[in-house]
Amino acid sequence: MSLLNYFKKSKPNTAQLAKERLQILVAHERTQRNQPSYLPELQKELMAVIKKYVQVNQDDISINYESDDEQETLELNIVLPDNV
Amino acid sequence: MSLLNYFKKSKPNTAQLAKERLQILVAHERTQRNQPSYLPELQKELMAVIKKYVQVNQDDISINYESDDEQETLELNIVLPDNV
Repeated sequence: MSLLNYFKKSKPNTAQLAKERLQILVAHERTQRNQPSYLPELQKELMAVIKKYVQVNQDDISINYESDDEQETLELNIVLPDNV
Repeated sequence: MSLLNYFKKSKPNTAQLAKERLQILVAHERTQRNQPSYLPELQKELMAVIKKYVQVNQDDISINYESDDEQETLELNIVLPDNV
């Protein structure tokens, strides 16, 4: 499945939600189970980079973190302001 | 579909590819079609951040960029060295 299609499928398809959005996904596939995770720190730095490019309100950021034995994923969903 | 499952589906399932991997996906959903893209610049900065956390060889990075009228996606696939 194309990545473009993945994002299209996951998008709420209502006119009122036709906002500009930015999604950042990070997946770390682990071969060793007991490594410390650096994703929380990485997330902070990624947000700092993104804020250089787009004006982001803290309220408009939703963060989802999932983890299992094999991998961990971090998802940042950002609704961009209308005037950007 | 859970994001964890998306990444699992897209993973080559052969023993010889049991490498540690890091994937970064960026999707920008556009409401205006003629905006200049900032994803190429963003990509460079994201890589700079990632290199603070993991040792990455330039040869082990594959980059995929897709774009259509509605959105653009940037995908970075990084195979991490065994000794990390």
